[in-house]
Amino acid sequence: MIQLSDIEAAAERLAGVAHQTPVVTSRTLDAAVGATIFLKAENLQRGGSFKIRGAYNKISSLPDEARRGGVVTFSSGNHAQAVAIAADLCHTRAVIVMPDDAPPTKLAATAGYDAEVVTYDRYREDRAEIAGRLERDRGLTLVPPYDDPLVMAGQGTATLELLAQAGPVDVLVLPVGGGGLIAGSATALRARSPGAIAVGVEPEAGDDTRRSLEAGGRVELPGVPRTIADGLQPITPGRLTFEVNARVVDHVVVVSDEDIRDAMRFLFERMKTVAEPSGASALAALLAGKVDASGARVGVTISGGNVTAARFAELLG
Amino acid sequence: MIQLSDIEAAAERLAGVAHQTPVVTSRTLDAAVGATIFLKAENLQRGGSFKIRGAYNKISSLPDEARRGGVVTFSSGNHAQAVAIAADLCHTRAVIVMPDDAPPTKLAATAGYDAEVVTYDRYREDRAEIAGRLERDRGLTLVPPYDDPLVMAGQGTATLELLAQAGPVDVLVLPVGGGGLIAGSATALRARSPGAIAVGVEPEAGDDTRRSLEAGGRVELPGVPRTIADGLQPITPGRLTFEVNARVVDHVVVVSDEDIRDAMRFLFERMKTVAEPSGASALAALLAGKVDASGARVGVTISGGNVTAARFAELLG
Repeated sequence: MIQLSDIEAAAERLAGVAHQTPVVTSRTLDAAVGATIFLKAENLQRGGSFKIRGAYNKISSLPDEARRGGVVTFSSGNHAQAVAIAADLCHTRAVIVMPDDAPPTKLAATAGYDAEVVTYDRYREDRAEIAGRLERDRGLTLVPPYDDPLVMAGQGTATLELLAQAGPVDVLVLPVGGGGLIAGSATALRARSPGAIAVGVEPEAGDDTRRSLEAGGRVELPGVPRTIADGLQPITPGRLTFEVNARVVDHVVVVSDEDIRDAMRFLFERMKTVAEPSGASALAALLAGKVDASGARVGVTISGGNVTAARFAELLG
Repeated sequence: MIQLSDIEAAAERLAGVAHQTPVVTSRTLDAAVGATIFLKAENLQRGGSFKIRGAYNKISSLPDEARRGGVVTFSSGNHAQAVAIAADLCHTRAVIVMPDDAPPTKLAATAGYDAEVVTYDRYREDRAEIAGRLERDRGLTLVPPYDDPLVMAGQGTATLELLAQAGPVDVLVLPVGGGGLIAGSATALRARSPGAIAVGVEPEAGDDTRRSLEAGGRVELPGVPRTIADGLQPITPGRLTFEVNARVVDHVVVVSDEDIRDAMRFLFERMKTVAEPSGASALAALLAGKVDASGARVGVTISGGNVTAARFAELLG
């Protein structure tokens, strides 16, 4: 499906476009976990999350005509902002389908990157259908949030970079939403460090990938999971991401919202850095002892930092 | 009083001990201020603030016998933690005099670095007197929080480093508490960039250095100023720091608590980094338009990041 060469090609496209985010270490953190931890700070990435990697890799790889015609996506989260930025960088237009009750700050942030925002009533309308209509009627190309080989390969560059910056790791821990980040990352890991272990992290209430891996096929949760990790709420794995992850992911562990809050607090107080709930969840699994990492060299992705001060206060006040 | 050579000597002592903190830039910030801004991220320094620079420079410079005898200081803030860490690094003991009603987290953090905490009743006892008694009775050496040439020279290394990392600046903006950071920093700036301007920032209610510079002599505020910037609350400039600052500081501007909150929020939401109120105040002055910086290359020190998530929530929730 995707191979190291796809991720290397993505890294070349992203050079000078995505930030090479720092790898952060902390003696306090190492002591707390009993391991040597390398945090890949994708919260400091352009747009505040790793999502620009996949979005830009996809849009910049489109045939000229398609790229000129513009792109469309549906997302109320980090992918929306990433597509808006990437489209701008590729000198094309982006249309973002967002629910009309999305937080005004998110609508404004997306529009601020010159994207066109099309809102819909999420109780009455289907966003995929709206996006499909925009594809047909306006000649736009869909940029999926995860279920796409170029998107997966782009996300994998975060781990390719981490391994180049930190050296080999024994364990890699990443959050799992739709599964694009871990699909690309675990593919890179398998190729570069064949003996290393790739661990996914899901919220307790949203463990669709864990269940699917155990069942040997994609299962669907009964409804949108209740969790503060709003980036990890898909109810079923992507078709393509699952196909990849079934081969490259070793296992998936789950964390509670309280574990996530603890990790956000740790990052804030000890490391002076801001992670959104989804972004802190991989570290949450380590701090809560959910990952067997004793004595190991462990890579962890802090996948995003898009949380307002007001929301942070609500979560941790 | 202090010269570039003192600061250079301090930098040599601090090599491998203090972190070389990153200089952070942001297109969004540059656009908001209309200048090219270089943030020196001392919130990422060991102990969470620049204070380790002065404390270590002082303690490591003590004659062998004095150093072996141990050190004492009085502080409930970042200087306490810095002295504890620096003493530990110099293989000597530190005694920290703190009010018995200091936040338990601060007491614990200081004790956590193997320092001995001596508490006192701040309504009945005088901390300087207690520290003086400890000096005499136990053969300890006092490490003042700012009013000391070695402490000032140590703090100045933050700016020496900034200029090496970012290149020359036209304007340097720093918070003013007791005046040690700006004394060392403006001395370094004068020597390295003779035409550049050094601007101090104080809270509106705690403008003792501004008033003193205007009066041409040290003035004392009637009481402890009410401000969220708890690191900037001295009621009068240090004797030695004022002597230096009267020569090297161009002027001092003031910020409101609301300006400081806005800067903390900007750092959190846009730059994903945590600053305590005092630590955000230099940036607050720029964002609030209190510093004439249009088109300039501006160095700004984010001086500390020691704020709990709970306190942050209280301030910005």
